[in-house]
Amino acid sequence: MTVTRETCALWDEEDPLSALRELFMLPEGIIYLDGNSLGALPRATASAVAEVITAQWGSDLIAGWNTHDWLHMPNRVGDKIGRLIGASSGDVVVADSTSINLYKVLMAACELGSTTGHPRGEIVTERGNFPTDLYIANSVAEMTGLTVRLVDFDGQGGDSDVASLIDERTAVVLLTHVDYRSGRVLDLASVTAAVHEHGAVIVWDLAHSAGAMVVDLMAAGADFAVGCGYKFLNGGPGAPAFVWMHPDHAGTVTQPLRGWLGHAAPFEFDPLYRPAPGIDAFQVGTPPIVSLAALECGVDTVLAAEPLGGMTALRSRSLALSSLFIALADPVCERHTLAVMTPRSGAHRGSQVSLTHPEGAYPIVQALIARGVVGDYRAPDVARFGFSPLYTRFVDVWDAGE
Amino acid sequence: MTVTRETCALWDEEDPLSALRELFMLPEGIIYLDGNSLGALPRATASAVAEVITAQWGSDLIAGWNTHDWLHMPNRVGDKIGRLIGASSGDVVVADSTSINLYKVLMAACELGSTTGHPRGEIVTERGNFPTDLYIANSVAEMTGLTVRLVDFDGQGGDSDVASLIDERTAVVLLTHVDYRSGRVLDLASVTAAVHEHGAVIVWDLAHSAGAMVVDLMAAGADFAVGCGYKFLNGGPGAPAFVWMHPDHAGTVTQPLRGWLGHAAPFEFDPLYRPAPGIDAFQVGTPPIVSLAALECGVDTVLAAEPLGGMTALRSRSLALSSLFIALADPVCERHTLAVMTPRSGAHRGSQVSLTHPEGAYPIVQALIARGVVGDYRAPDVARFGFSPLYTRFVDVWDAGE
Repeated sequence: MTVTRETCALWDEEDPLSALRELFMLPEGIIYLDGNSLGALPRATASAVAEVITAQWGSDLIAGWNTHDWLHMPNRVGDKIGRLIGASSGDVVVADSTSINLYKVLMAACELGSTTGHPRGEIVTERGNFPTDLYIANSVAEMTGLTVRLVDFDGQGGDSDVASLIDERTAVVLLTHVDYRSGRVLDLASVTAAVHEHGAVIVWDLAHSAGAMVVDLMAAGADFAVGCGYKFLNGGPGAPAFVWMHPDHAGTVTQPLRGWLGHAAPFEFDPLYRPAPGIDAFQVGTPPIVSLAALECGVDTVLAAEPLGGMTALRSRSLALSSLFIALADPVCERHTLAVMTPRSGAHRGSQVSLTHPEGAYPIVQALIARGVVGDYRAPDVARFGFSPLYTRFVDVWDAGE
Repeated sequence: MTVTRETCALWDEEDPLSALRELFMLPEGIIYLDGNSLGALPRATASAVAEVITAQWGSDLIAGWNTHDWLHMPNRVGDKIGRLIGASSGDVVVADSTSINLYKVLMAACELGSTTGHPRGEIVTERGNFPTDLYIANSVAEMTGLTVRLVDFDGQGGDSDVASLIDERTAVVLLTHVDYRSGRVLDLASVTAAVHEHGAVIVWDLAHSAGAMVVDLMAAGADFAVGCGYKFLNGGPGAPAFVWMHPDHAGTVTQPLRGWLGHAAPFEFDPLYRPAPGIDAFQVGTPPIVSLAALECGVDTVLAAEPLGGMTALRSRSLALSSLFIALADPVCERHTLAVMTPRSGAHRGSQVSLTHPEGAYPIVQALIARGVVGDYRAPDVARFGFSPLYTRFVDVWDAGE
């Protein structure tokens, strides 16, 4: 079959998910392929935030904490995110940044990992993990006396490698589900099972997964997860992050960022810290209400797909978009010594496609931006293109390919 | 002289600072004496936030980080806060919550405190400090192997006690400038000097000071400070917090929340953490741009007092307001077994007045709220009334007293 721009337009027309694009304000004249870095603006956000600012804060002032139940916004928005990642209700909370949540869960995981029988001295993570993940892992290792061991996975989907890379020394494994540079996916369920088989604890970073990938943390029986609010969840620049813990661990671990909102009874002003029983112990300071309102609107755009097949349908569309992009990119790559870095197998590909150029990718990304195709650059040689299944059209991919 | 409501109205009329009230949206029919818990909404906030959401994020998407210099908003807003607390330009950064910033600076302070000569094993703080401060101090003590020693100050201003309560075992002293319950103030300069005389490091929590008190961190030669964005800085519910470090300590300490934004060159995606040289090493994750825009509007309301005498003039007004409240409360207290808990000496009183009742203060606070006077309750026996010199009028205090 020959694909043309008309074919793409037909696919857009036929896909019920195409209607979700209407939930966003998208600027004219650009093709935005960077929703994996900063999601687009939902139409609902500006008025929802204005409502919180003017009608809630402005009118009700301190009473807003009760009147509008601001105090439980981290739980309410957390529960909505939970529906996208296979968490049970009550097990996700929105708080702080991904980096800070990583610190909390890694400290908790080390506590858990070092009490599972024989002494285990290692945090295992991937050499190419996002820098913050590496920095935090090293910091936690220093705090706990563990060491970090860096491993390398096969870049085309390293699921099968994992079992061979960890052993009885491994206390905790910290992995990012979708690699930020290459877009390579690990199989969350089988990797979790392999880690558990070795008696270690798994921490998943879902920064590039939540809202783009089918994730089922409970089915996988994972231990901890963190993720980002401003990528595929469309929460806005610097939106707060989320954190999840398997309910079986509730009450069995602690984390060192003990703030008053993580206390079992914050308004008793107890001088002694008594952690909240479940995931609330991963809250720290006063929740950021204005940011939470914006994040909720972003999460709602993903939940709007629920009647249309939810994450499974969104994931299919995302794969169709990235497959099309690869097919269009291939002849271009051949002409210009570019290479597709992202796995060609759908099972191992996230919601992005990365191209590499031996002489560096920065000029390529800049030249495309000048032509209205917005991707981004990851030093030194990666040009990254993200496909939000909520608002990227097949014709956009076609036009970008052209 | 007999003070009447007319006298109060005259004071309001004569004080040039009264014009600043116009910078706020204040609901009709209530007297808001809880700006020490959640500051009121500046008129500028809704449109500034809408601008960031719609015109910046919505139109420019990922390019906003450069086009609108979002990346340096934590520094730009930090510098504005710095003008209110006697910090030099470049030494304050907005980040995370007060609790999390406390963790960072206490870890850094312990590192510094334990390298100043003979071994020092103690973090000293006040028994009545805000719970988060106690929780974080205990957590940091566990992390570092230090112990926390709790001390009690004279409730009427404990400046002179400090020297006698610390000694050569003291590594770090963590104190809150204005006590959240009583409103008692410590003398920042003399306490800092006393702490330094004993060779220890001082960490100040300015949660109830920034925007309400004259604070000069550089003149005092303090070591570290943190503070809150949503009280007297009017940044909105859960606004991000700030953190300051004396520039002499730049590059000499580390903190364990090592995120990519604290790296000297975040966009190099360096797998090894290399902290930014100064206060930027206290940044962690991606800055919360929408919240920062709201906080900037709040800080601007305080800076608007600069041509009218700045913090010195605001502090005078705040003291006049709280003195009037005490004078009006005294006869009421006598009739109802209430007591003024806050020091009567202006030098030892923050921007609030607290009343205690032996049978608990909750019904009192509720009854006042029902009459349109909004203060707040701190378990078990404190009714707390805050006076924002930016928008509280003398007639408000009069009417509340009535």
